[in-house]
Amino acid sequence: MGIKIGIVGYGNLGRGVESAILQNEDMSLYGVFTRRNPETMTTLTNVPVYSVDEILNHKENIDVLILCGGSATDLPVQTPKMAENFNVIDSFDTHAKIPAHFEKVNESAEKSGKVAIISVGWDPGMFSLNRLMGQAILPCGKDYTFWGKGVSQGHSDAIRRIDGVLDARQYTIPVEAAVEAVRNGENPELSTREKHTRECFVVAEDGADLKRIEDEIKTMPNYFADYDTTVHFITMEELQRDHKGLPHGGVVIRCGKTGLNEENTNIIEYKLNLDSNPEFTSSVLVAYARAAVRMNKEGMKGCKTVFDVAPAYLSGQTGEELRKNLL
Amino acid sequence: MGIKIGIVGYGNLGRGVESAILQNEDMSLYGVFTRRNPETMTTLTNVPVYSVDEILNHKENIDVLILCGGSATDLPVQTPKMAENFNVIDSFDTHAKIPAHFEKVNESAEKSGKVAIISVGWDPGMFSLNRLMGQAILPCGKDYTFWGKGVSQGHSDAIRRIDGVLDARQYTIPVEAAVEAVRNGENPELSTREKHTRECFVVAEDGADLKRIEDEIKTMPNYFADYDTTVHFITMEELQRDHKGLPHGGVVIRCGKTGLNEENTNIIEYKLNLDSNPEFTSSVLVAYARAAVRMNKEGMKGCKTVFDVAPAYLSGQTGEELRKNLL
Repeated sequence: MGIKIGIVGYGNLGRGVESAILQNEDMSLYGVFTRRNPETMTTLTNVPVYSVDEILNHKENIDVLILCGGSATDLPVQTPKMAENFNVIDSFDTHAKIPAHFEKVNESAEKSGKVAIISVGWDPGMFSLNRLMGQAILPCGKDYTFWGKGVSQGHSDAIRRIDGVLDARQYTIPVEAAVEAVRNGENPELSTREKHTRECFVVAEDGADLKRIEDEIKTMPNYFADYDTTVHFITMEELQRDHKGLPHGGVVIRCGKTGLNEENTNIIEYKLNLDSNPEFTSSVLVAYARAAVRMNKEGMKGCKTVFDVAPAYLSGQTGEELRKNLL
Repeated sequence: MGIKIGIVGYGNLGRGVESAILQNEDMSLYGVFTRRNPETMTTLTNVPVYSVDEILNHKENIDVLILCGGSATDLPVQTPKMAENFNVIDSFDTHAKIPAHFEKVNESAEKSGKVAIISVGWDPGMFSLNRLMGQAILPCGKDYTFWGKGVSQGHSDAIRRIDGVLDARQYTIPVEAAVEAVRNGENPELSTREKHTRECFVVAEDGADLKRIEDEIKTMPNYFADYDTTVHFITMEELQRDHKGLPHGGVVIRCGKTGLNEENTNIIEYKLNLDSNPEFTSSVLVAYARAAVRMNKEGMKGCKTVFDVAPAYLSGQTGEELRKNLL
């Protein structure tokens, strides 16, 4: 059986975790826990579905819970609560609220003696790790994060809330010239507008005022006003045919100087190109679930982030195997 | 004063460490230890030079030693010996001998209660870390490592040993079409010849048989026979003018499938583009020196590799600062 995992919340992320567990021989999925009526639900692999209200009855059968709820309202409550009884992983991604979330989860996990790893995924997550390592290795330098090309769900949702819009998909696109300048070690100063553009595919209601919708999108504060934004109106059929995937990705580039007179330029680049944003995030969550269980078995407890996890814990191989095969 | 560092061995790597320490406010260089006569040596920053034979007299003044000797003969003896009294970092890079080196160093460091981190740099080192994480996150996949474009010192030395050769510089160059195929998720099977080419710049003695030298290079087993190799004969002036740097770099690419039917392709790419191979390696060593001291202060001991070091230890920032600023 290996590591027994419970999934809490069954959306895109939960389904991604379900698939990812199948790829790991040392793991199995014990069940899915939901706030919906379990009897109305089926899962991709036909694992049992339980009400989240009775999760404590399953405590002895679960090594780690992967929490697949949203950062806005689910995780701030769920992660500290579940950490009272379980090792847990979440993908909490509201950057500004991470310190407060950490404190609450840490209090629970210190008390219960469990390990909770929060803000796991690719940003926050793998990108954060590469920012940290780039700064630690090349302290005299600058780093840049570009996102995309990919679908931003938050921005797509913002368009959907506009009156007269039936559905929408928003792509965040890095400005290639800016990425190249960074890659060439030019250390440019880049405004928000110079780093990314936004492209929107919008399905409007019949007879809607397209000009008004386009204006509302392009002038929306925080989301679009600071960017060069393109709006395309398409049919529902086109949206479903051409834009049903959730690709994403991006790049973290650290450019740092070395040498007594900082005469040499060195570039570290970490790049992701993902067909499926939720499935990749899920895959990261599953690797960190293995780490949480192993760290807890060694007596560790409390709240952790990707910064606190030695990479060896992510792998199913022993230290000896890793040194022989991968170092 | 912060972390006090000793350098053992003063070649390209030692000088790189000396420069790198200046970029880190929480560190200072205590001195350089050499097997040569210290009185004949000066350093870039005029730090004291001592004989390595008297290093134990300085034990109380040093938090960690960075060992900058070679992997062939220096480090196999030096690292286990120094770990009897000091926290140490080395860049041992003979892949096949890492397990044996680990065992010897671990025995010393377990006994002394010190932390020794071996095989630190970029390959082994950062590239190893990215191979591990790629495999852990995307278990259904394949990874590829390409090196270059950059100067291979081992291959340059091999050419220099040929009769009639005064000096030489060898560049390892990744085959761009192969890298592109990997980046596109094609998962190609690549032979040695299909991954890299080798380009040699050779200064021959007056009147040397250039045809024979070129043949000897191109047919040299292990080093060149399995590659498409180009040989250019140039003057000593040209070599010194155009080839005095030690640039290097490369890329680790993991291509992995996700989804219930492995229908989605996800690519992780970690790329280095280095003006100075030794200075970048030195910068990595210095960051891990910080980690060794901090881990030892927390009571850890024994031999470690980059796989065993939680990233937070590399940074001078507190956990709280890291979560706030970088996550």
